[in-house]
Amino acid sequence: MIPVYSEEIQRLLDSHGIKIGDLVRLKIGDAELDGELMPKANIGSSGTIIIKMADGYNIGMKLVKELEIKKLSSGAANIASFPKISLKHDGSAPKVGLIYTGGTIGSRVDYETGGVSMLLKPEELLYKVPEIQGIANISVDMLMSVASEDLSYHEWGRIAESVAKAFNNSSRGAIITIGTDAMHYTAAALSFMLQGLNGPVVLTGAQRSSDRGSSDGFINLICATQLASKSDIAEVGICMHNESSDGKCAYIRGVKARKMHTSRRDAFRAINDKPMAYVSIGGDIKYHGDYRKIDAQKSGNVSVMPNFDPRVAIVKIYPNSNPKVIDFYVNEGYRGIILEGTGLGHAPVSTNHQEFLWLPHIKYAIDNGLIVGMTSQCLYGRVHPNVYKNLRLLSNIGVIYCEDMMAEVAQIKLGWLLGNYKRDEAMAMLNKNLVGEIQSRLEFDEFLV
Amino acid sequence: MIPVYSEEIQRLLDSHGIKIGDLVRLKIGDAELDGELMPKANIGSSGTIIIKMADGYNIGMKLVKELEIKKLSSGAANIASFPKISLKHDGSAPKVGLIYTGGTIGSRVDYETGGVSMLLKPEELLYKVPEIQGIANISVDMLMSVASEDLSYHEWGRIAESVAKAFNNSSRGAIITIGTDAMHYTAAALSFMLQGLNGPVVLTGAQRSSDRGSSDGFINLICATQLASKSDIAEVGICMHNESSDGKCAYIRGVKARKMHTSRRDAFRAINDKPMAYVSIGGDIKYHGDYRKIDAQKSGNVSVMPNFDPRVAIVKIYPNSNPKVIDFYVNEGYRGIILEGTGLGHAPVSTNHQEFLWLPHIKYAIDNGLIVGMTSQCLYGRVHPNVYKNLRLLSNIGVIYCEDMMAEVAQIKLGWLLGNYKRDEAMAMLNKNLVGEIQSRLEFDEFLV
Repeated sequence: MIPVYSEEIQRLLDSHGIKIGDLVRLKIGDAELDGELMPKANIGSSGTIIIKMADGYNIGMKLVKELEIKKLSSGAANIASFPKISLKHDGSAPKVGLIYTGGTIGSRVDYETGGVSMLLKPEELLYKVPEIQGIANISVDMLMSVASEDLSYHEWGRIAESVAKAFNNSSRGAIITIGTDAMHYTAAALSFMLQGLNGPVVLTGAQRSSDRGSSDGFINLICATQLASKSDIAEVGICMHNESSDGKCAYIRGVKARKMHTSRRDAFRAINDKPMAYVSIGGDIKYHGDYRKIDAQKSGNVSVMPNFDPRVAIVKIYPNSNPKVIDFYVNEGYRGIILEGTGLGHAPVSTNHQEFLWLPHIKYAIDNGLIVGMTSQCLYGRVHPNVYKNLRLLSNIGVIYCEDMMAEVAQIKLGWLLGNYKRDEAMAMLNKNLVGEIQSRLEFDEFLV
Repeated sequence: MIPVYSEEIQRLLDSHGIKIGDLVRLKIGDAELDGELMPKANIGSSGTIIIKMADGYNIGMKLVKELEIKKLSSGAANIASFPKISLKHDGSAPKVGLIYTGGTIGSRVDYETGGVSMLLKPEELLYKVPEIQGIANISVDMLMSVASEDLSYHEWGRIAESVAKAFNNSSRGAIITIGTDAMHYTAAALSFMLQGLNGPVVLTGAQRSSDRGSSDGFINLICATQLASKSDIAEVGICMHNESSDGKCAYIRGVKARKMHTSRRDAFRAINDKPMAYVSIGGDIKYHGDYRKIDAQKSGNVSVMPNFDPRVAIVKIYPNSNPKVIDFYVNEGYRGIILEGTGLGHAPVSTNHQEFLWLPHIKYAIDNGLIVGMTSQCLYGRVHPNVYKNLRLLSNIGVIYCEDMMAEVAQIKLGWLLGNYKRDEAMAMLNKNLVGEIQSRLEFDEFLV
């Protein structure tokens, strides 16, 4: 059972027609506080009204006689406009597996600290969004409750196994609810780990921006369910808000997605790619980019290659950076390094300041058998080993230029390759496209959108 | 004297009305090659026509009898439409200092290798753009010829001294031509180093994208000259193309600029900020954001605080990343670390996988006197030490949350602070705004534009 406000508070709210998510004004004497009415937290008195202020902080006010409450505007307009979908439990809806892993979408406000904690009871997630059970026949795997930033390849493997299990139990698609910080990392890992995939694997979550926090997770989850149950996309992708102002979500290829804003609901963006589709909460799917389609003729199980060698580092190049960090990773027994170079894939290779000269250290790593890949910290665009002499100095010693891959994706790809293939095979595959992580040509309209 | 094609080739070009930068088709028998006509390189035969192909490679074709050449379209349209500005050398134009440091804007095609090399004679830069001498009374300091990626704080100090010298010799503004890879790093460093600045310091360069390479540097340089000679902005900024298709440039605050694309002409973007102004090649300046104005009443010289402590590292957090890299920097005698955390400023602080647990290593650095700052790899948005419990674990041990600063800027700021102030003063100033690097509020329309 989820916590509720005291009967007294609920009566007060009802008498003013106030619902969770509405913008309200609390007033005691001359003191006024405006904010969004939050649900009752798991801890703390049920006799305290909690609002989220515009600065993101939550404030609790005890219900005393002098307290006045006024509704300023209705909140969560998008939720109010959800299409009425009748619940179905007869099994005629498409079968979809939902895998719960933790993250903000399954978190609740902790008003005592002003912060956010993980859900104590993850099943509240579905309780809050009954609509999705009208779209799909959902089976839930409460796999784990891990904060996004704490996810590692161990968890990636378990998530991949759960996805495979869902598909092999006749689900046509899978949804993964997950924290947003590691969502794109996890999506990239699953893209490589899942073998024989023949349906959509949709990662979703909540950004819970400070001002309109509670609603985006619901919309994202409904859109994700629409994709998992209806789309003909047989790829791993991320379904999150496409714009800050409405309920349309984008479905972005997992190996091309990146979290580009700390707090906005539309933080996830396709880098050097287009979203594969846009989807509305009503289930209207507009396919946008190229994607791998579900093959109706295809049979065979989804399998998992979960092995992963974490001994691959991302190393960023910047002015005055210390190239001896390369030696550190060599000494730590690392097997690969992905450089985040500047521009087209540069590192300092001709400076007179020896302490900042990267070339000999990179060569040392390669001589010790490490695979060294080059990406660009620009994020957008493609690295190129040939335009400048300094670039050729790097490619000549064996640095592999990773095309238009992001550093994060190249690191995950190389870790996965080294976990599953011999070194030389892994090296040969690093800059060859496997699952859409390298796009042969970049479109002009894929910059900053 | 700059190299020219042989008389024979020049005659052929003239007879077809072909100019450098035009798109041409070379034909010998059945073989056809389309590309942009490049200027003659410093080395190689003057009897070879060089074109740049759409893939960015340069190809040279010897002038033989069978060679046919055809003009497909006029290139460098923007240059052709330059307003006619009469040259002035009488000193009535504003006095502006131009500091040459190297980079693509001062480079030339090396057709033998298919790549690009630094200019042998930097004064060619002005030779190619006589227009700027009609806008300003330019005095040039051929300071150095260093590839962008090889610039260090040693060069930053020299550039700052040259800027100060120009101002103190009655220039009203300064232009710095520089490679694009380190342009934003250098702009940030100069923003902190220059003291008492009372005029525009405009960094510019060339992206020379593979398909339309040669023109952007000219336009950028002219726009930079307009800014340096006319604008009332007393800040360091970057002047580069604002759009890929026309000659309008943006003037972006140095501590808020970032190179966001490997090859596009409009690669530079304001992150968590607006450009301070837009400028056309004709000198029309539209002020856009807030900026510090030139104070006509102000007297006193520009001075330089060039000291910089390079012992500040940027460390990126990602799944499966090795926290022992923190120990490496502590052991190297580092004095500061800027973390590029995930989302709102996260690092793995509660994982059960000890090898990925960052908290104790970060604490070890702080216990050893290092200043540890937190930024976000999202780039856009602000970090926040209070929203989640895991964030508070980090702020509680002393990690300083760096607001909306980019990691690169925070690293340069901390290096500069440690070079000029006592440790505790530096720590106190890290997340306080000095020169616009921290914006008190972020506008909604500053995301991905």
